[in-house]
Amino acid sequence: MLTYKKKYNVPYYESDANGNMKLPSIFNVALQLSGEQSLSLGVSDIWLKETYDYTWVVVEYAIDIERLPRFNETITIETFATSYNNFFCYRDFVFYAENGEKLLTISSTFVLLDISHRKVVHVEEAIVAPYQTEKVSKMVRGHKFGKLNPDTVIERDFHVRFNDIDQNGHVNNSKYFDWMIDPLGFDFLGTHVPEKIYLKYIKEVMYGVDVLSRADMHDNTSYHEIKTASNHAQAEITWREK
Amino acid sequence: MLTYKKKYNVPYYESDANGNMKLPSIFNVALQLSGEQSLSLGVSDIWLKETYDYTWVVVEYAIDIERLPRFNETITIETFATSYNNFFCYRDFVFYAENGEKLLTISSTFVLLDISHRKVVHVEEAIVAPYQTEKVSKMVRGHKFGKLNPDTVIERDFHVRFNDIDQNGHVNNSKYFDWMIDPLGFDFLGTHVPEKIYLKYIKEVMYGVDVLSRADMHDNTSYHEIKTASNHAQAEITWREK
Repeated sequence: MLTYKKKYNVPYYESDANGNMKLPSIFNVALQLSGEQSLSLGVSDIWLKETYDYTWVVVEYAIDIERLPRFNETITIETFATSYNNFFCYRDFVFYAENGEKLLTISSTFVLLDISHRKVVHVEEAIVAPYQTEKVSKMVRGHKFGKLNPDTVIERDFHVRFNDIDQNGHVNNSKYFDWMIDPLGFDFLGTHVPEKIYLKYIKEVMYGVDVLSRADMHDNTSYHEIKTASNHAQAEITWREK
Repeated sequence: MLTYKKKYNVPYYESDANGNMKLPSIFNVALQLSGEQSLSLGVSDIWLKETYDYTWVVVEYAIDIERLPRFNETITIETFATSYNNFFCYRDFVFYAENGEKLLTISSTFVLLDISHRKVVHVEEAIVAPYQTEKVSKMVRGHKFGKLNPDTVIERDFHVRFNDIDQNGHVNNSKYFDWMIDPLGFDFLGTHVPEKIYLKYIKEVMYGVDVLSRADMHDNTSYHEIKTASNHAQAEITWREK
């Protein structure tokens, strides 16, 4: 199991009104790091596309947060693949403060997508061998998401923007998070921080649609759905006062 | 006149569907660099706030683009203050490719804002002396913006999101650009790139409002306004086929 790490200074534009690093930026920087590890091992995203016409797609995240990185803080981010099976590859990202204190851990599940056929494919040995991790037979059991109560749900719709679309031709997966948390409102988001997040991507969102973000809060846990005619993503977030 | 420079590799999440660096990201990275220069000269944004209760605010940009930076390209960005007068400070940012080719130039106009009183103040010598630039009596003449034709204008409204708000408590100035270009649509934005941009910030946008983005296109130039009950920003962009 090979670990890849780098230092990162949190810029102003990736900080929110509270001075904390934005969650979409946390996902962006984490994914960038796994891309850098792949490049360093000779199995870059470009190689993957040119050789197999495949791309890595995140399907699930589970995040434990002790404390969010702060504006202008220099953090260290580590990533390592933990295991894989026929269809899923598991990878962790750990964010540390300068004094070595653990800030947050992201556990992620990736699949390989055939770009032209838009479907999930078997994990090939040649693609994952360089990460030096173990093939396991069992699958990590996905989180079972709580249901939203239609009597208390808050809804808000969002238009997909040109700058939400990435080079894969769909909405970048970090964007969902802005849609999800926004219905909770400034008063809540200005006084609370997440401590546990489960996030699942079900179906990609393309340009030209409006998505409906549905949120429902009970006992410091918020339940989220991103919908069009289909379900695109769901999440569950446990909050604490900041 | 002191120049500050650094290398920057364009990450995936700052690239658009065309593989070009997003314009809001270009502004973000540029402003981050001027903040780093201020820090290196002992006049950081934190010092400015603690000593004077002031913050730097951009009021105008003029951008000339030869070519946009590309995904995964390593660029060099330089910034230097060019001159100042009683109210305005002028600063350029120049982006270069690895072979030294000039990619784009941003000319910017900054003012100093008194944070508590929310008003523009005189430029103090002690604040600008470290940049070693010249005080001039004349003001740079601002661009005169073309009018939108009500018969051909396209309108789209946008809700201000929690993650649009920065530590200054208002919408971060890079966000306006997403609102401005979005009404032009994917077909146009997927086949055209900007070559000249004028952008003027008139009044800050706070949380909880919906803004109206108005755009009007004639002869490869688009004219833009961001409005609520007030005018918040205007822009003029000349496009070419990519």
